[in-house]
This record gives sequence, structure tokens and C-alpha cells, in this order.
Amino acid sequence: MQFSEPLVLSSGVTLVDYHLSYETYGELNQEKSNAVLICHALNASHHVAGVYAGQEHSEGWWDNMVGPGKPVDTDRFFVIGVNNLGSCFGSTGPMHTNPQTGRNYGADFPVVTVEDWVNAQARLMDKLGIHTLAAVMGGSLGGMQALSWSLQYPERVQHAIVIASAPNLTAENIAFNEVARRAIVTDPHFHGGHFYEHGVVPERGLRIARMLGHITYLSDDVMNSKFGRKLQEGDIYQYSTQAIEFQIESYLRYQGDKFCKYFDANTYLLITRALDYFDPARDFNGSLMQAMARATAEFLVISFTTDWRFAPARSREMVQALVANKRKLSYAEIDAPHGHDAFLLDDSRYMNVVRAYFDRITLAGEKK
Amino acid sequence: MQFSEPLVLSSGVTLVDYHLSYETYGELNQEKSNAVLICHALNASHHVAGVYAGQEHSEGWWDNMVGPGKPVDTDRFFVIGVNNLGSCFGSTGPMHTNPQTGRNYGADFPVVTVEDWVNAQARLMDKLGIHTLAAVMGGSLGGMQALSWSLQYPERVQHAIVIASAPNLTAENIAFNEVARRAIVTDPHFHGGHFYEHGVVPERGLRIARMLGHITYLSDDVMNSKFGRKLQEGDIYQYSTQAIEFQIESYLRYQGDKFCKYFDANTYLLITRALDYFDPARDFNGSLMQAMARATAEFLVISFTTDWRFAPARSREMVQALVANKRKLSYAEIDAPHGHDAFLLDDSRYMNVVRAYFDRITLAGEKK
Repeated sequence: MQFSEPLVLSSGVTLVDYHLSYETYGELNQEKSNAVLICHALNASHHVAGVYAGQEHSEGWWDNMVGPGKPVDTDRFFVIGVNNLGSCFGSTGPMHTNPQTGRNYGADFPVVTVEDWVNAQARLMDKLGIHTLAAVMGGSLGGMQALSWSLQYPERVQHAIVIASAPNLTAENIAFNEVARRAIVTDPHFHGGHFYEHGVVPERGLRIARMLGHITYLSDDVMNSKFGRKLQEGDIYQYSTQAIEFQIESYLRYQGDKFCKYFDANTYLLITRALDYFDPARDFNGSLMQAMARATAEFLVISFTTDWRFAPARSREMVQALVANKRKLSYAEIDAPHGHDAFLLDDSRYMNVVRAYFDRITLAGEKK
Repeated sequence: MQFSEPLVLSSGVTLVDYHLSYETYGELNQEKSNAVLICHALNASHHVAGVYAGQEHSEGWWDNMVGPGKPVDTDRFFVIGVNNLGSCFGSTGPMHTNPQTGRNYGADFPVVTVEDWVNAQARLMDKLGIHTLAAVMGGSLGGMQALSWSLQYPERVQHAIVIASAPNLTAENIAFNEVARRAIVTDPHFHGGHFYEHGVVPERGLRIARMLGHITYLSDDVMNSKFGRKLQEGDIYQYSTQAIEFQIESYLRYQGDKFCKYFDANTYLLITRALDYFDPARDFNGSLMQAMARATAEFLVISFTTDWRFAPARSREMVQALVANKRKLSYAEIDAPHGHDAFLLDDSRYMNVVRAYFDRITLAGEKK
């Protein structure tokens, strides 16, 4: 959907016009009371669930969560997936033409924040005629958007579902992001972010960024059980520093190669930076309790025990801030071995928590 | 010291001749019973302690640990620091001339293992006329060498002091090493490891490797207390993906830049690979208990609570294997906030544990 009214970003920069790609699943009811917005994390898109014509299997990143009869049941809810500004899956981003220069934006695409994304998403809701969301939901960076919705538009959110997320990044989180960004920016093929014009991609940097990301998505436990010290071939060391010796190396290189083929380097910079900047407590002298006083939504907060990227303790900070504000909330700490990735995976306890929560949501005008 | 007898490496490759740089502190007693070998970790050298002529402050990497009146007291012990093969601080390594080609070794320097280093160190001890070491000691990769000494030359080691170490790397450890190596190897300035001839250094890759390393040396706690989300300048976001915004970014970039100036990229590959390969239980179907049955030394094992690179659980594996073999041992788990780096830092409890242990060591021929 095209938006022609300018959007003023957190940075003060104005985006004159922009496009947002989105998908919907299910039917909006007459009262427009059953809308659920799904916010995506780093490398995902508006394609949350379902299959496109001719596809055998869904490429939706949350197809296990969203669909008919699934935890977020599209027989009951009208689900919206939206691609964020600055991303590389259809919404206006670095690969598009900057109307002010006629060139691609490249690294000149303005820095966008979680708050900016939420503002853009709110405008999409306006255009869809949806004032109040039954729920806004996301994992990781998507969870930050759900949280931010409850603070920026408290009157428009009935339920906020924040999964495997955090109220801000730690120094270590920022550090990993910075290493990834430096790998991209210092790749000679980056060309100051204008690599499109050179017909190249900073693949070396993107690969490193993605390999590093994958380490932080997995738990030490799942890495050990899945790969351990298993060798790629046979059981004899090859004694090489560059050949693939251990299976974990093969896995990471494969993930890095795959990522280069579909993800944009400038988007990687933008999205990791949006993560770094998010910090709703910042305007309240670091008090998350004060920051969250605005929120009126009911919350479901979920964390995973082995997630060391956004550890359960970070979810508990949000829970405590909500409790201190006497807000309604449910909190589930799921004992899952998969680390941060768990929020994308099938785990019956996790899925059941989400299903039970959505079953409890009362919709205006709905006959039960 | 120059060695002209060939050294057959674990890989089967023979190093025809080689040089080992070493330093000694204190005096070897008449019985030659007071020698302590200090093994270095990734980026350190034979310069363990003390000052060179004209220096005001010591650049020795364990100067707080080794010296007159210090925990490893050079008034009593004869301490030897040795630079390992493949390193870049004097001993034969990738920057030296390969006698078979007349070129620098570069990436053709043979892969060396912890076991190879210990064999080379044992020959140095032979030349110094030292049959039995009162102690062999190291932290991190240095601790692996101390452990390996106790297995390769059990009769030559009275005490093994293994600090912040592990009996092998986990998949996650290997993964971090692999990302660092790929960053170096894919840097266009790497030139297949023969960058010396091109007058360049793969600085981009080395920087990434070092930045990443630093994240794993620090604990999440110490990063948060030292840097947290503090901004580099003022208290207003600059909204940039490439400028330094957070202090942690400045710290990491500084560490990366500094590292490029003194460390060799090929050495980085070799040393991380030696870490990956170390696994004494491998020849015993993964049984560390069986692997350590050979060891006759008395052990001091030390770990640090916040070390997530080589977590206390990894040290406890060694302790359990020693207990199962009914070996004498002391184990200290130091509650220190500094992560893996703690083994290099002053912490009175840590220093006192080492001091007390060395005070208990009985030396043949010594009057107490």
C-alpha cells in the first residue's frame, strides 16, 4: 500500500512517501474487532503464513503459529503481516529509489526505529479501517514492536503478546550487532552502501554477520546436541585451518551463503540499529516501570530458558514493570532447549500457551 | 633457542628445524627442581613478566602473577616463558622463511596442535637441563597445554595448574573461532595467506576476529557495568548505522585496531585451530576419565563463575576425571565478575589460591 503523507521519523528526517507491503489472513469481522497484527523480527517479512499459488509448502515464517485452527486461529482472527520500512521484502527500503536523488537510497536510507515502524503500521491500520487491534504480537524484535504499540497507541491495543524479547539491548547484544555491521561496512564490495550501482553485494560481510547471528540464536546445549564436535567427514582430523573440519562449520557457512542470496546488506545495518536504539525507559531516567505506566493493554509475555540473546531475566523486567503498574498479564517461561530460535519453532507447551491466551480474548460483537 | 632435530607434528608433517623464543625469571636451583613452565594463550608470548631495559611498566602478560614475592614467586621458583610454534612473537611461525620454498611460510605453515607445542616445550626443557618441572601452568589455551603436559610427559610434571580452561571446545566455541577465521580468510588482503609479499595485512578480518574475541572474553555483567548502554558522546542519539553511538562500540573498534598492529593473521588461524583440535578424550571414545588415567601430577584447577567461554562446568569435568582416577587435586571456583578475562586480572581470592598452592609445593633439596 502506498502512503503519500510524509512520515517524520524519530531522527527528525522526513520520509516523503513510502510503500508498505502487507498480507492478511482470515476475514475482518463487521465490528472490525478481530484484527491481530504480527510484527516481524530481523530477517522476516510480511509473509507470515500460508502458501502462494503453486507452492507446495508454506514459506511463511510463522506458519506453525498462524492459520486456520492454529494457535492464532485465522478462522476467528483477521491477521495482518506487514513488512517494515527499511526492509528488503517489498516495503520502501535501501534498494528503492530515493526521490530526492533519483539514485537508490543505499546507505542513505534514513535510520528507522521501532517507534517509526509502529507509526507506519498504525497508518496502515487506519487505511484498513481498523482502529483497535485485538492483539499485536511478535517475537524478538517483533516483540519490541508489540511492546512499543502498547506505549505509543495504548488505546488501540487490547492485547500485547511479547515473545523472546527485551525492553532494550544489553551491551553484549549491541556488541554482536556492531561486529556484524563492521563486517558489512568494511567489506570492499560495500562501496559506502551504494553497491547496487557496482553490481556487487558485500557477501563476505553479510556471511560473517549471519554466521555470528546464528551462534546467538542457538543455545550452547542445542549446538552441542546437534553438532557437538562431530567431524564433517570421517573421523580423522584433516589438519587444516581453512577446510571445513567440524559439522558446525559447515552449518554456519551454509547459513551465511544462503543469507547473502536474499538479504540486503543495508537492511541488515538498519534493522540491527533499530534493535540497538530501542529503549522505552530512556525518556524516564531508565525506569521501565514509569515508561510502561502508559500501557493499558493486557499482556502475554513469553521467554525461553535457554535463550541467551534475550534471556528470561529480560522478559521478567517487563513483567515486573507491568506488575508494578497493576496491569493484567500472563507470563510463561518455557523450558525449551533451542535458545532464541525457540520462538519460531514448534513446542507444544509454547503453542498451547499462545492458543489458550487467544482463546480467552473476547471480541466485541462475537457470538461465542 | 634453535633446534636442528626435526619435529614430527600431529599432522604427520615434519618441521625440519625451528626456533623457540623464551624468557626465564629467577634462578634454577642446583637440584634443578624449581622450574615452572608458563604456557601462553591465544595472543600472548614468552614475555610473561618483568621489564625490559628502559621500560617503566611491565608489558608481561602475567606480571601480576609472576615475580619476586608474587603468587608464583621468582625468589623461589625458576620460571620459564616460551613462545609457541606458529606464533608471531619470535618463535618459528608463518612470518618466517620456509626453508623448502625460500618464501615466507604464510598459510603454508603446518597446522600445530597443543600436543606439538608441548613436545617442542619438552625439548626446550631438555636443552635447559630440566627433567622435571615443579609445575606447568597456564590459563585458557595455556591451561590446555598444562593439562596436555600431564598426559604426554606425566613423569616430568609434579604439579599442573589449569586455569579458566576446558578439556576440549564446545560446538559454540568452535563456531566463534570459525567466524573469526572466515573473516580473516575472506578478507581480500589475505591473499591466500601470502599477504606479506603484497605488503598488506588483512586488517578488516583481523579486526572482526578480535572484536568478536573480546565479546567472548568478557561477561555480560561486566560489559553492562562497564559500558551498559552509555553513549559515546552526549546523551542524544545520532541516528547513524556507521558512526560510533555506544561506548561498547568504541571499545571494540579500539581493541580491533590495536590488535591489527601487532598480531599476525596466519597465527590467528593456527592458534584458533589448535584450540579446536585439542581433545585428549578423543582417543578414549570420549572418556576424559580414561584419558586422564595417565596423569600422575597433582592438579590445581581454577575456574571463574562468569566465564562463559570456558565455563566452570568444563573445569569440573576435569576435576571429576581426576577424582575418578583418585588423583590429588585442588579446585577453586572463583566468584569473579570479569568473565574469561578474569584469569589475567588481579583478584585477591584468585591470587591467594595460587600463592597458597605454590607455597605448599615441596622442592627437592630446598631448605624451608
